Amino acid sequence: MRLDADGLRRDFETLSQIGATGDGGVSRPTYSEAHIAARRWFLERARQAGLATGIDAAGNHSARFATEANQGAAVLLLGSHLDSVPAGGRFDGAMGVVVALNVVIAFKQASATLPFALEAIDFTDEEGTLMGLLGSQALAGTLSREALASPRGGRTKLLSGLSRGGLEEDRLFEARRDPDSLVGYLELHIEQGPSLERQGIDIGVVTRIVGSRSFRIDLQGQGGHAGTTPMDARHDAGVAASRIVLKVREIVVRDFPGAVITVGDVDLQPGAFNVIPKTARLSLEFRSQHEGTLTAIEEAIRPAMQAEAVAEGVSFQITPVARWQPASLDPHFGEVIERVARAHGLSTTRLPSGAGHDAQELAAITRTAMIFVPSVGGISHDPREFTAWEDVVNGATVLLETVEELARHR
Amino acid sequence: MRLDADGLRRDFETLSQIGATGDGGVSRPTYSEAHIAARRWFLERARQAGLATGIDAAGNHSARFATEANQGAAVLLLGSHLDSVPAGGRFDGAMGVVVALNVVIAFKQASATLPFALEAIDFTDEEGTLMGLLGSQALAGTLSREALASPRGGRTKLLSGLSRGGLEEDRLFEARRDPDSLVGYLELHIEQGPSLERQGIDIGVVTRIVGSRSFRIDLQGQGGHAGTTPMDARHDAGVAASRIVLKVREIVVRDFPGAVITVGDVDLQPGAFNVIPKTARLSLEFRSQHEGTLTAIEEAIRPAMQAEAVAEGVSFQITPVARWQPASLDPHFGEVIERVARAHGLSTTRLPSGAGHDAQELAAITRTAMIFVPSVGGISHDPREFTAWEDVVNGATVLLETVEELARHR
Repeated sequence: MRLDADGLRRDFETLSQIGATGDGGVSRPTYSEAHIAARRWFLERARQAGLATGIDAAGNHSARFATEANQGAAVLLLGSHLDSVPAGGRFDGAMGVVVALNVVIAFKQASATLPFALEAIDFTDEEGTLMGLLGSQALAGTLSREALASPRGGRTKLLSGLSRGGLEEDRLFEARRDPDSLVGYLELHIEQGPSLERQGIDIGVVTRIVGSRSFRIDLQGQGGHAGTTPMDARHDAGVAASRIVLKVREIVVRDFPGAVITVGDVDLQPGAFNVIPKTARLSLEFRSQHEGTLTAIEEAIRPAMQAEAVAEGVSFQITPVARWQPASLDPHFGEVIERVARAHGLSTTRLPSGAGHDAQELAAITRTAMIFVPSVGGISHDPREFTAWEDVVNGATVLLETVEELARHR
Repeated sequence: MRLDADGLRRDFETLSQIGATGDGGVSRPTYSEAHIAARRWFLERARQAGLATGIDAAGNHSARFATEANQGAAVLLLGSHLDSVPAGGRFDGAMGVVVALNVVIAFKQASATLPFALEAIDFTDEEGTLMGLLGSQALAGTLSREALASPRGGRTKLLSGLSRGGLEEDRLFEARRDPDSLVGYLELHIEQGPSLERQGIDIGVVTRIVGSRSFRIDLQGQGGHAGTTPMDARHDAGVAASRIVLKVREIVVRDFPGAVITVGDVDLQPGAFNVIPKTARLSLEFRSQHEGTLTAIEEAIRPAMQAEAVAEGVSFQITPVARWQPASLDPHFGEVIERVARAHGLSTTRLPSGAGHDAQELAAITRTAMIFVPSVGGISHDPREFTAWEDVVNGATVLLETVEELARHR
């Protein structure tokens, strides 16, 4: 069983052109034209290779290799996602999907005999243009009506996104799969952090995936003329927003080492040179490997943020957007990955993931593992995101042989 | 000579419906559909009243009353502007234009004999959707190629705005009027600040108009994944922006009493929950009655802002957007206004204007005065902007009789 490394590279380069931003990155937010084109490419490439393809009620795109012998057997899923953050990198998600597809193709071309069906899957909206982990939550049965009611990008954006994707909100739940129908889930991904590169390690075996909580903060101040309103008579929502941005950073850096907190967006209205900002809307999230730490951060920052707003005479409202619990991945799958990697002379380490992944949802219903390869400079969600091609091939080889190994011992 | 107060009110109500936002305010940014509709209404109303109308090369809309006797005589301009800030109030500018138009109509209907032509004028883009004071600068000959090269809203917005208005950039300068062709300029406006109301004064006579300087600040940090980038490895442009917002306020409040500084907008890119802000663009302006204070503020905040950015490892760039010098208005015109007001039993006071006005450009080439009426709560650039109708009528009466008085003594 060998992977066609040249074919893999061609596929990756082709995919990198879809939604390319000209600076080495891609922009493929969920159900943007570029995202739709990337998913179409995935299906066509799979069909050309003779795989059966399908799209489920949550828009997840699948390419499956099944023989007569294992037609009714459970499925080993290999996947990741083709959507990107706005102006993101070309490796995040896409690399895992291209490799998964090529691994399935390799088994198909070898007419391999497997004790399970093998399926490459591209999950819908991992990055959260609409709500985040939408496809994997639907498949895992962890999707909730509450999360759909208050999605990251707002209801309008969710509904129009679903509509562009040809999806119906009420039918998303139909994508749920019976855990008994699954053998497990393997995801190859770039680390998106600096630790493999710093330690000079080839392959990372993910032990845990961080949990995160995200919130929308709405501040309501008082507009007014920027020339005629004295400084001491202002209730400037932009000033209150700035105080909050600095305060939450101060608290997490000081009291919660290892955790991270980010205000990724601040929207001021009306947003003119000569008008005092009347309202501000902030996008806030924080992450930790420990559920208890997430709760402690939330308890610390909520009153602190409110106090900053109140100090400016600005009203404060906080709305939960998403809440992902930390997930533990499968130790046995991890050991198989380590064994396979070492047999190839590749160095390995176990590490947690600071980023969320579809794997965290799959872990709730089936044995799940993630393989990390190094990110140069630890940079991700940025056009400069980069992984050496050799590392991509290492990851692909380990994924393919992990499948073989799982087949052998099932 | 009497003003038709009912007609004035009908006109004001009609105009307030154009671009109404449903909360008492209007949104008529320059050459938005609502703004174009408001200007069309102005011309139609003028034509119905038998006035000659015209649009100059800068889009300024005029309605003129001239008799055979004063056909070639110099012109007394009465004006303000029909554009608004986004989601602004219905009095700012519009009240002055409606009153100016009704005053000209009153003289026309009375077939008055005047030693000058009388012209109501609606200036283009006072508020700065495109660049601010565009029409009055063009008319006064104070418009510069430099200002057009780096306008508030950016070149694209300027050019598309001019195009929607049927204007050509190179021809804007043709709107310039010979100072000898003008008798003077009178502008009735709401105060947009609290001082008349607080003192219980009916009519304000403006002595000076503040100067202002505005800048665009561009911060370039480093994007990256919000989950995998440790707090101490970040170069977050949003954090740097927040530091700058708070720092410039601190400096101006502490060291420059009476001056005001505002960051009216902050735009973070890429602007997602899970991506560290890579770039930030801030809209900054500050105002003072004294040119020396403006210079001192600029000298104080430039290095301070840079230091805040550098502390986050974020690069800092500052681009001047607009620079308006403080203007002195005409003392003789001011005395006439005071005399007329007192003859009606109205109380008056002299006060500076914290807001910029077309009058500051006219003051450079002709005798110029401004009449202020009280703003409830001092609120402006906001849907809650309000002036009691009695105060509008007071202002209109004073404007009309000031014209009569100037005619009498010319």
